[in-house]
Amino acid sequence: MDDPTDAEQACFEAGIKFGSLYHQFAGTPVSPDSTRSLERAMAEAIENQPHCESVTVEIHDDRVRAAIEHENDYTELTGSLMDVQMRIEYEGVTVRTAMEMADGYPLMSIVGVERPGE
Amino acid sequence: MDDPTDAEQACFEAGIKFGSLYHQFAGTPVSPDSTRSLERAMAEAIENQPHCESVTVEIHDDRVRAAIEHENDYTELTGSLMDVQMRIEYEGVTVRTAMEMADGYPLMSIVGVERPGE
Amino acid sequence: MDDPTDAEQACFEAGIKFGSLYHQFAGTPVSPDSTRSLERAMAEAIENQPHCESVTVEIHDDRVRAAIEHENDYTELTGSLMDVQMRIEYEGVTVRTAMEMADGYPLMSIVGVERPGE
Amino acid sequence: MDDPTDAEQACFEAGIKFGSLYHQFAGTPVSPDSTRSLERAMAEAIENQPHCESVTVEIHDDRVRAAIEHENDYTELTGSLMDVQMRIEYEGVTVRTAMEMADGYPLMSIVGVERPGE
Repeated sequence: MDDPTDAEQACFEAGIKFGSLYHQFAGTPVSPDSTRSLERAMAEAIENQPHCESVTVEIHDDRVRAAIEHENDYTELTGSLMDVQMRIEYEGVTVRTAMEMADGYPLMSIVGVERPGE
Repeated sequence: MDDPTDAEQACFEAGIKFGSLYHQFAGTPVSPDSTRSLERAMAEAIENQPHCESVTVEIHDDRVRAAIEHENDYTELTGSLMDVQMRIEYEGVTVRTAMEMADGYPLMSIVGVERPGE
Repeated sequence: MDDPTDAEQACFEAGIKFGSLYHQFAGTPVSPDSTRSLERAMAEAIENQPHCESVTVEIHDDRVRAAIEHENDYTELTGSLMDVQMRIEYEGVTVRTAMEMADGYPLMSIVGVERPGE
Repeated sequence: MDDPTDAEQACFEAGIKFGSLYHQFAGTPVSPDSTRSLERAMAEAIENQPHCESVTVEIHDDRVRAAIEHENDYTELTGSLMDVQMRIEYEGVTVRTAMEMADGYPLMSIVGVERPGE
């Protein structure tokens, strides 16, 4: 077993933030009236975590509206309602990650890794 | 077994909101920089739920600061860091509830029940 | 504003347990291989809470299977996948509650209230 | 920006699982009577996630007992009450991770990375 490289450690940190964001906030009651405050709270909460330089969360009002059942005024937050981007910095390595819909399913992925000196 | 009265149903609804708020958001990373956005998102999220007329959440910056461990810049949200008040309306019954510290432990309680005609 | 009756307080306690159970565990990764352990952990966790005498959780394997997307081996727990029953006791009052599907949507409700002397 | 290596992707997946486990289950009511069922449900839930070969969770009964406040019979799950180990496999790379107490604070870390051919 090797110790992780700085870039591997940076990717581990990036994954922690994504799992945290998703499982902390999935299930939150959401309506078109509360998307802006939830986006902001999610971003600011996860930006508190170490090595997390930037988080943007976009909850799509039109998808929220479509998900609301006929007898209710709200739905529960799931990955299919939002896009998320993050930037993680660790020992000079930058990792960019995103959660976006792929084949009808929200996929968390690494957009790119920027190593020192590149 | 009896069917519940309107006031009993109102109190049940009030309890659901409190349990929801607490277990949805407990554990969220929080620092003095993110208290305002988290307060607002919590209130607006739970106000989406049926019969929930008003939610106020106050996260105490001084308690957050005191809870932050020496090597970190944030802590996790727990009941001891905040006060919450809610107003529930159901079929003319108003229930007011609060979560506040009692003997060092956060206690969810009914502040009062106002019945129609009172 | 009146103080709550014992039955109203019992219904408030019942609501807290339901909101707690739902928002603690909604979003948990679940497959037909992990339904039994999740049911048991949910019931035992919520039975720890005060005045909560009994919790039964049934996660329907067939609904879990139907909810699993084609490219995955699991889904996330939502109210539509399970039935829940609880019994709350407070100062001699018994409240029975249930979450079941109604019109395609999971509804938390009071099944009945049993008062002392009944 | 480079595409991630297989080992970097494996570390990202490992991080997702850790963030998921922590933020899904932190805050769960727990007592010495419910530690075993919670350990098992946590491990089986996260093992559902892709590339997650093995999860072990140990909740320390003595720490749970010590955390229980005088007037209660339970506490809420936090990182300081448990040890977690995971093994992630991705395209022939094995990543081992652990959460253990370090300086009084629960730390998620990569124990080692095993590359193909090693």
